[in-house]
Amino acid sequence: MRQQVAKLAGVSEATVSRVLNGVGPVKEETKQRVLAAAAELGYVPSALAQRFARKKSGNLGVVLPYVPKVPLFSTYYFSEMLGGIGEEAQAQGYDLLMLFRKPEQPRDYTALFQAHKVDALIILGARDTALDRGALEELERSGHPFCVLNQRYAARGNEPPFMTVDADHWSGSRAAVRHLVDIGCSRIVFINGPAQYSNSLDRRAGYDRVLAESGLELREELVLAGNYSRTSGYALTDQLEALIRAGDADAIFAANDRMAIGAMQGLRERGLEAGRDYALCGYDDADAARMASPQLTSVTVPFHEMGQIAARRLLQQDGEPKISAASTILPVQLVIRESSRSRQ
Amino acid sequence: MRQQVAKLAGVSEATVSRVLNGVGPVKEETKQRVLAAAAELGYVPSALAQRFARKKSGNLGVVLPYVPKVPLFSTYYFSEMLGGIGEEAQAQGYDLLMLFRKPEQPRDYTALFQAHKVDALIILGARDTALDRGALEELERSGHPFCVLNQRYAARGNEPPFMTVDADHWSGSRAAVRHLVDIGCSRIVFINGPAQYSNSLDRRAGYDRVLAESGLELREELVLAGNYSRTSGYALTDQLEALIRAGDADAIFAANDRMAIGAMQGLRERGLEAGRDYALCGYDDADAARMASPQLTSVTVPFHEMGQIAARRLLQQDGEPKISAASTILPVQLVIRESSRSRQ
Repeated sequence: MRQQVAKLAGVSEATVSRVLNGVGPVKEETKQRVLAAAAELGYVPSALAQRFARKKSGNLGVVLPYVPKVPLFSTYYFSEMLGGIGEEAQAQGYDLLMLFRKPEQPRDYTALFQAHKVDALIILGARDTALDRGALEELERSGHPFCVLNQRYAARGNEPPFMTVDADHWSGSRAAVRHLVDIGCSRIVFINGPAQYSNSLDRRAGYDRVLAESGLELREELVLAGNYSRTSGYALTDQLEALIRAGDADAIFAANDRMAIGAMQGLRERGLEAGRDYALCGYDDADAARMASPQLTSVTVPFHEMGQIAARRLLQQDGEPKISAASTILPVQLVIRESSRSRQ
Repeated sequence: MRQQVAKLAGVSEATVSRVLNGVGPVKEETKQRVLAAAAELGYVPSALAQRFARKKSGNLGVVLPYVPKVPLFSTYYFSEMLGGIGEEAQAQGYDLLMLFRKPEQPRDYTALFQAHKVDALIILGARDTALDRGALEELERSGHPFCVLNQRYAARGNEPPFMTVDADHWSGSRAAVRHLVDIGCSRIVFINGPAQYSNSLDRRAGYDRVLAESGLELREELVLAGNYSRTSGYALTDQLEALIRAGDADAIFAANDRMAIGAMQGLRERGLEAGRDYALCGYDDADAARMASPQLTSVTVPFHEMGQIAARRLLQQDGEPKISAASTILPVQLVIRESSRSRQ
């Protein structure tokens, strides 16, 4: 086909390649002749060939943790961030390449660039582990543009080590616990997620801070461990029921809505209702928070906007991704609903 | 770098290219020498270059309808299908390339293959419109492997026109309406989605059939139009309230859970409760169906499995996608919950 285009335009095949791949010097008049001939013959140049010549894939890569049987896309947290990333990628003419990585699989982030699979990379579900940190540091050294979403890492000197977009979970957690104290609760159970996420550490710091500010004793037996799944909240039913019935707990703050809803469902089976027998506050403000009954008090996190901002930063400047280590932290918002009605 | 590999291995650069791209005849001994030299020098051959040589992208494309402000990934329907597709792609070593298409944007499906962006394509959210059908017919003629998910098209002769994976929505709809009749309802409102989806037509056919079988009159004023969004169900609140209060409706069957939940929320604001003042049945069995209160009677659709099957069909035979026009229809299952308690 390229041969026919060359023939029709009266130029060499090499010239056709240069024009269609947008590389090398070609006179404007020649260029127009080649494009006209290509259009006439209905020749679609291979985008891959073009990008190969320009070392571009046209893809924005998104790394996602892969766990068999876990409906990741159904998780409000991931789906909202992906929606924001997708919206911005679409606006900038990029396609999204989803890259699933198993938790303990080596993180070959740099190889994705070397192999020209992606032009920039957004990493979701990153943890503060040696494996994840090492891969990010290698990527940082390689100079490829990437952004870590909803996870922070300790600063190096005064500089953030990587470009990150996060939300202010410390303030969100404080607002949630402060609200529970304000409505008269003093024995607040905290269900947190794993410590390898900065999210969990931020929430814990906010919880500790409000207790201290309010003159409430920090009791480690009220800090329970979940893993951000609904099941992990539900699995705490026995412990939670015992604490509430013994008068040792009058409120529950869960580090996300899924765990809050799991706990709420378990306690309902034991005759204990959120908003009546105990106050309940979740985090994330997922669709489920509004659909639950009673509706769940929660903290709205702008996941969609976080995804958009990360993609925009990476893809800005007309498709020439630029790297810059900068940390962006977006505000969050407490939303009070029925599950934490004022107590008499 | 390639030059250095050639030097170290004592072969020509062309030979290095042939070995690293896996094309052309090379003696086994030479091949081993080149690979050893490449490994020693830490040379990562470009996957894009390799695939370019083999005309392979290593990507399974997924076409998704793009509508600004609609959180597509948060939709149970799409997220579950994507989860199944992603699981299978991961198992087969493929990455997922998400391709957003605006509803009225030209469908350049064939160009995606010509440009070597994808090796196979799964199309979600396809409609029975001239635009969509035309693009699929062109793709069919081009011989590229693709599959349409959760949408069927009229057969050509005895043959399905394209490879499709769908669920048995006709039987699902019948089971739902039959259940409402069985618990004593006789004035069943049906909230359907747009007719450009075979899903909607199947549900309507099931509804009509059960009314006829049960000797119930088909009243067009009980068939209401939504668009599968929660808002579109909520927007029918006035009409639904009037029908129920006038005794002209004792049940609602909505073509998906989102519309059912929207209607339920609207009616609750008017003091009408599902499972008490009227029976309610949704469709899809989304997470929201179980989290709603009262829990929603619904029809379980194996979206995850549908995605897996479509991906498996396309990617089978060790990464050599094969095309075959075949229609697969998976069974669905009615799940009875509180929103359609037996009526006295």
